[in-house]
Amino acid sequence: MIGPDEVARAAERIKGHTRVTPVVAGIGGASEMKLEQLQHTGSFKPRGAFNTLIKGPVPKGGVVAASGGNHGAAVAYAASRLGHSAHIFVPEIAGPSKIALIERTGAQLTVVQGAYANALEAAQAYEAETGAMQVHAYDAEGTVAGQGTVMAEWEAQGLDADTVLIAVGGGGLIAGALAWLGGRRKVVAVESEGTATLHTALAQGPDAVIQPQGVAANALGAARIGQIAHGLAVRDKVTSVTVSDDAITRAQAQLWQETRQLVEPAGATALAALTSGAYQPMAGERVAVLVCGGNIAPDPLG
Amino acid sequence: MIGPDEVARAAERIKGHTRVTPVVAGIGGASEMKLEQLQHTGSFKPRGAFNTLIKGPVPKGGVVAASGGNHGAAVAYAASRLGHSAHIFVPEIAGPSKIALIERTGAQLTVVQGAYANALEAAQAYEAETGAMQVHAYDAEGTVAGQGTVMAEWEAQGLDADTVLIAVGGGGLIAGALAWLGGRRKVVAVESEGTATLHTALAQGPDAVIQPQGVAANALGAARIGQIAHGLAVRDKVTSVTVSDDAITRAQAQLWQETRQLVEPAGATALAALTSGAYQPMAGERVAVLVCGGNIAPDPLG
Repeated sequence: MIGPDEVARAAERIKGHTRVTPVVAGIGGASEMKLEQLQHTGSFKPRGAFNTLIKGPVPKGGVVAASGGNHGAAVAYAASRLGHSAHIFVPEIAGPSKIALIERTGAQLTVVQGAYANALEAAQAYEAETGAMQVHAYDAEGTVAGQGTVMAEWEAQGLDADTVLIAVGGGGLIAGALAWLGGRRKVVAVESEGTATLHTALAQGPDAVIQPQGVAANALGAARIGQIAHGLAVRDKVTSVTVSDDAITRAQAQLWQETRQLVEPAGATALAALTSGAYQPMAGERVAVLVCGGNIAPDPLG
Repeated sequence: MIGPDEVARAAERIKGHTRVTPVVAGIGGASEMKLEQLQHTGSFKPRGAFNTLIKGPVPKGGVVAASGGNHGAAVAYAASRLGHSAHIFVPEIAGPSKIALIERTGAQLTVVQGAYANALEAAQAYEAETGAMQVHAYDAEGTVAGQGTVMAEWEAQGLDADTVLIAVGGGGLIAGALAWLGGRRKVVAVESEGTATLHTALAQGPDAVIQPQGVAANALGAARIGQIAHGLAVRDKVTSVTVSDDAITRAQAQLWQETRQLVEPAGATALAALTSGAYQPMAGERVAVLVCGGNIAPDPLG
């Protein structure tokens, strides 16, 4: 099972390719927040993409990925920086802002009718046909180890918290964090009610499938939780909470009003657990919040 | 003349009332950037406001300020946190976002027809009538010493630059920086072409008056440079450059696209000097950019 060694190797690999993102005082009851939306392409995703592509080997056919937007932008960006060609398959739900972000990298782009699962199917067909390397958005060891570097980096920056709140979609980010931490801190998984893959899997079993919906669906909208994330969440008895779309929208407004950080709903989901009371810390418990993505739609600057 | 001692005392005074804002890797040729728009109320202005109000004494009539928006919001916020009443006079040009920001603090608010100078006149009449304490937006020692704490804080965070680019309106921020630095680093004053009070004063003399206009006018739009700023700029032979509104708008888009920092035009003005070529560093010169305000209009979240 993936652990701190894999994350440490990933951190070594991606050094200089990803940004060290800032940590600031928290709001809404959080003791501190890491602002990972300042990462290249506006989310944590380049960590996993760079780790996978640098580890390689990348075939002549380049790389292919399916994505609700953020992972696709990250793979396209990493491929472009490393001199590989990339073909990204996005579902319509990705929306024009994220599609434009991918287009700016120079990657080939196919918009697929339907949901994330349909884009993944198209990407797999492309992989079979061309021999391109598939970079999975969350359920691959290279992706997970890369995402885990955000937690390693945060601890190197002096993270001072008992508990870390992390938003979950397919589970790549939380899996990486759990792999790195190995139970040294409490991790709380936060999902929107409409994208609660982990919450559902913990209740019904790892194969539970959901229909992603709501304000965070284009970033957190996997149909089922990744196996790696599920395994680590069960191992570490992760606390899982869900928040309403309304709570997310309010947390998003609070982040903007109090810190001038404009993030997408997924980026405000972890904070929403605290501000809505879905997660209630014990007296004296220091709770840190990971802000994970800022690719809001519509793009405020058009 | 105000110097590092006054700034150090201000830093001591406002500690815990203002945020320590993050420093990140630069874009567009900058070696690093300090993101002061994460300060309370979205700009550096609370530093001067807290310094002035804590130093006091604040009379029973409370405090009064005239402001294009950011200073007014800062004075209103600081007064509210410290338990004083506040009356803020803003010109229409402040716009609905900044007016809403002031309203959220619970301060009394008067919107004045005309420009900043008209709001200042109204604030002075109110001061004469009520005995309220006037907090000048830029040309008062308490304000300048407070704003200088941003540079003291940045150096404590390990600022590693030969040169710092700072946007100038009335000159409170640059005056504080010059007072703190005392010539230890090169400071470049950056103004929009439509708000070039310092640039004009350095060419024509300290009493030169301009008609503020353009995209940055509601934050940088003083009619003349403050005397404190002018004196320090002359003493330190500050390099003064101007940038077009178009260059500012492009720098603003670049900050959003590359770092997901959505700032107002004034907040992107210092960076614009670098990205437009208005300031051209020498080979090897490390140039840091101060991002100073994020109160964009219209408010992207309504």
